[in-house]
Amino acid sequence: MRLRFVPEGAEVRVPSGTPVFDAASWNGIAIDSTCGGHGTCKKCRVRVVSGELPVDTVDPRAFTAEELRDGWRLACRASARDDLVVEVPPLQTRPKAALAGVGRHVILRPSVQKRHLLLPEPSLEDQRPDLQRVLDALDDLEPKASIELLRTLGGTMRAADFDVTAVICDEDLIDLEPGDTTDRRFAIAFDLGTTTVVATLVDLESGQPAAVRSMLNRQQPFGADVITRISTTMLDPQALSTLQERAHETMAELTEEVCAEAGVDPAEIYEITVCGNVTMMQLALGIDPEPLSMAPFIVAAHSFPSARARDFGVQVHPRAPAFIFPSLGAYVGGDIVAGMLATGLTRDRRLRMFIDVGTNSEIAVGSNERVLACAAPAGPAFEAAQIKCGMRAAEGAIEGVRIDDDDIGLEVIGSTDAVGICGSGLVDAVAELVRCELLDHTGRFVPDELAAEIHPGLASRLTRVGKERVFVLHWRGDDPSASVFLSQRDVRELQFAKASIATGWHILLRELGIEAGDISQVLLAGSFGAYLTPLSAVRIGLVPKLALPRIISAGNVAGEGAKIATLSYRERAETQSILREVEYVELSGRADFNDLFVDQLAFPG
Amino acid sequence: MRLRFVPEGAEVRVPSGTPVFDAASWNGIAIDSTCGGHGTCKKCRVRVVSGELPVDTVDPRAFTAEELRDGWRLACRASARDDLVVEVPPLQTRPKAALAGVGRHVILRPSVQKRHLLLPEPSLEDQRPDLQRVLDALDDLEPKASIELLRTLGGTMRAADFDVTAVICDEDLIDLEPGDTTDRRFAIAFDLGTTTVVATLVDLESGQPAAVRSMLNRQQPFGADVITRISTTMLDPQALSTLQERAHETMAELTEEVCAEAGVDPAEIYEITVCGNVTMMQLALGIDPEPLSMAPFIVAAHSFPSARARDFGVQVHPRAPAFIFPSLGAYVGGDIVAGMLATGLTRDRRLRMFIDVGTNSEIAVGSNERVLACAAPAGPAFEAAQIKCGMRAAEGAIEGVRIDDDDIGLEVIGSTDAVGICGSGLVDAVAELVRCELLDHTGRFVPDELAAEIHPGLASRLTRVGKERVFVLHWRGDDPSASVFLSQRDVRELQFAKASIATGWHILLRELGIEAGDISQVLLAGSFGAYLTPLSAVRIGLVPKLALPRIISAGNVAGEGAKIATLSYRERAETQSILREVEYVELSGRADFNDLFVDQLAFPG
Repeated sequence: MRLRFVPEGAEVRVPSGTPVFDAASWNGIAIDSTCGGHGTCKKCRVRVVSGELPVDTVDPRAFTAEELRDGWRLACRASARDDLVVEVPPLQTRPKAALAGVGRHVILRPSVQKRHLLLPEPSLEDQRPDLQRVLDALDDLEPKASIELLRTLGGTMRAADFDVTAVICDEDLIDLEPGDTTDRRFAIAFDLGTTTVVATLVDLESGQPAAVRSMLNRQQPFGADVITRISTTMLDPQALSTLQERAHETMAELTEEVCAEAGVDPAEIYEITVCGNVTMMQLALGIDPEPLSMAPFIVAAHSFPSARARDFGVQVHPRAPAFIFPSLGAYVGGDIVAGMLATGLTRDRRLRMFIDVGTNSEIAVGSNERVLACAAPAGPAFEAAQIKCGMRAAEGAIEGVRIDDDDIGLEVIGSTDAVGICGSGLVDAVAELVRCELLDHTGRFVPDELAAEIHPGLASRLTRVGKERVFVLHWRGDDPSASVFLSQRDVRELQFAKASIATGWHILLRELGIEAGDISQVLLAGSFGAYLTPLSAVRIGLVPKLALPRIISAGNVAGEGAKIATLSYRERAETQSILREVEYVELSGRADFNDLFVDQLAFPG
Repeated sequence: MRLRFVPEGAEVRVPSGTPVFDAASWNGIAIDSTCGGHGTCKKCRVRVVSGELPVDTVDPRAFTAEELRDGWRLACRASARDDLVVEVPPLQTRPKAALAGVGRHVILRPSVQKRHLLLPEPSLEDQRPDLQRVLDALDDLEPKASIELLRTLGGTMRAADFDVTAVICDEDLIDLEPGDTTDRRFAIAFDLGTTTVVATLVDLESGQPAAVRSMLNRQQPFGADVITRISTTMLDPQALSTLQERAHETMAELTEEVCAEAGVDPAEIYEITVCGNVTMMQLALGIDPEPLSMAPFIVAAHSFPSARARDFGVQVHPRAPAFIFPSLGAYVGGDIVAGMLATGLTRDRRLRMFIDVGTNSEIAVGSNERVLACAAPAGPAFEAAQIKCGMRAAEGAIEGVRIDDDDIGLEVIGSTDAVGICGSGLVDAVAELVRCELLDHTGRFVPDELAAEIHPGLASRLTRVGKERVFVLHWRGDDPSASVFLSQRDVRELQFAKASIATGWHILLRELGIEAGDISQVLLAGSFGAYLTPLSAVRIGLVPKLALPRIISAGNVAGEGAKIATLSYRERAETQSILREVEYVELSGRADFNDLFVDQLAFPG
């Protein structure tokens, strides 16, 4: 279905049932609105110039019969089910916008809204209840209040002489503040990773980050990956609450840090958004993750019930809600949905491939026509956990390897000597060894004699530690076992990991009925993806063989998605469309998986 | 607007916009339904035989185009805006009903519902999330869950081998229980009075009370009436939380008692309903009551935001909601709305008057056409608080007085000697003294000489305590001051109290444009009203002069209303209609109040 907006002229293709307002938003066309799309502010007036758009139940409250006949509709309530040409009136106020995600232009419409109100004082002629007095003054919004708010609302009104600011989050009136505080409103976007947790304090007035901090997830001592952490909870009945506390501590500490850095009072933070994989979310919320860990891999819920910041142990405004990204499956979690939002994967015309590389890797392929997603259990190679000289991407880790003319160039993190190798270094090393033919296409180190023949300058590096053949990347003395090396088994680990991912995207391409060459762009996501050399990724067959400019390190798109969700309730609503529209493909138990997997173990020719 | 139901033939008059389902319910005509009127079960099918009933947005999901043309509609979604004849199909299941309130026949449709579910086990082919699996099985309901429930839901499902019972309250899925527990569901109806708190444990399967207990409100030491309690909170910043705790303790103790008496596990109580005056509600919820106590008398909210039993300190099911009756104004609270519900005041064709007699008295007059309500500040006379020999209606209190042939007959509570006089005794005594002309119509004791002349046998009782004239009701020795007597000032107190009430209903009659003689029935409500002698009430002018059978002691109608709310979500919804339809008349500051009040001070001729 096609939608054309006049006078701008932009044309977009959207799934049937998409609200006209959203279709416009995604294309950077702003339509007036203040109520959050609940049909209450009646400002998002558009006129249908061609095509059919049924009258919604709310429309007659906004328009006269004549206007309805002329095609006027509220854009937030109008679901396009037909090709349409829609006229958008000039804006009453020019909306602010911010750049976020992968080159996305996000119109600022935070879920957190403030309204400065000068309320009429009660009298015997006007005995409206305190709450009603506030709600009546919010004529474009119809939020709900809580018993908790009611405990302070009347006192605040009277102490402030009825000069107050209402704070609304989505459908909830969460506070009434004395005086005019409309210039102060903040949110925190959390990317709750298994390894690293990132908090971005967002100034909702400007749309700009006010502070960003990251730290290791304090659950780390309970296991490097999600499976280990789930196992911990299965072995010890206390572990779930311990892991929950650790996640909360991590988020609470980051909250303190970003507030201190930006000089923001935690009470001015009215909302948090949280993305993470399903295990991280369930652990943080105290929901038993065991069913995630074994077939048939069942999540508690795709969309979590409404939650508050305090459900994550985050001490901001006491009634601040928490927006939690929905998940598509046990291993395609809210972090991936956030990544899809940040990259606009489901709204872009181009066929794109999204890969979040990690112990569990997530893959999505598609365009605005159709998107498929799957999870590929890559194992820990990319985290370098089971690699002999593997280490996290920290000081002393080899993160880049280049082999030129029998010489080895290493990129090492920090101004220090190499002490180990991290995931991106591993991929580089293997890719370079394949290129210079010291590794054959099946992943075996070539015999010593052949090595000596083709690369006499490198042959001494191909040696043994114990019984295993290794390639020394960085000598520490003469002893290979004391040096930083790559073992035959390390290469195998990487082969399994990359084959798992490649099998995933091959299956998705097959399901979509397309070829790898049809892909316009590959987005490498996640903290690991950001450091991966596109050339090496192609060489080992981790990603399709495409022109290098088409392979993009997209960075921490999950965190960007979480940020976008603070900036726009419309973008946030898109996560529900992603949940509805993206088709999850379960790889476990597929008949074609093993065959394809074996094919992918080899390195491309 | 008139609605006729065929084949039953019952005809009812309802306000425009009333759902057809409700109109039927109020008249004891049962229509199938399981979803709580949310338009999800699609069972409440009715056919419009004559009149116009627009198609609702949900109707096309329930009916074919042909059925819609034939007039089929969902009764819960159909708002009557025209005279209608509606055909009600025979019931699929015969609904249970219970007698409650003032002769009301209540069809059992508790908000608390249970569904026994045999869920399909998850598999790689059916990876639906745990929550979705439950929701999908509840095809006639679409409840929401909470994070808290999600913490146990998956574990319960698995431990019970997917044989579970879902517990739904209104729009919330509050629990999943192992096995089939559908025969156990309970609620507690609380009447949270200033003096007495009553808890009725209701078996929602049978509609019958399983246990009833009452006790004094533990806030009593902080003042006998609402104004004193509010003053306490104004003088001491800690008092609000103390009073809140006291209310919670009272309700918690009653909960324990009714559970013990009926052998019910508190976890089987899935809901509470609470009615009380606005001060009691705000104190129990920790909301500052100060604005209630002084002009312009402002309540925090007419309808409180959604609350849980634990907001009242009641330890039943941890997610049990609390239904709180809405209030019409600072002094016409949820107890009165509950009373209106129990008496059917707003749905009855007869013109009726409802009076809840107390320190603050509430009065409502009307029929299904129109109802007006007001609050009359009667002062403490009826509680006998400022009466010289006054006491609460407890052992030793004179509760009835009769004067025959110069002899005095007393009804005393308990098998004991009279030690004081309670409210109903006071009214009786004054009424009898007026009848036998020892009190003149202005409320003065007649001169001693005249008393000796007309009632020689009583004249010795008309004497003095200090300088004040008194009438001794019960001698204790020869000393009048040691006896139980009625003083001139006591009579004045009662005059002020009854004049306040009479002024209230006179103003309502005037606003309605009717005469006292048009009233079909007077309902005396509240614990005091139940003990009042109708004849005495007429004699002192507290109620209009009507034939005595028309004056009914309706008993604790507030508690009955709270009970009805546990039995039927439809009846409960009626409280919102009461809030919308009943017109609150503020007596403070009315120009005609003082004139009328002075007129009403005298006793009727």
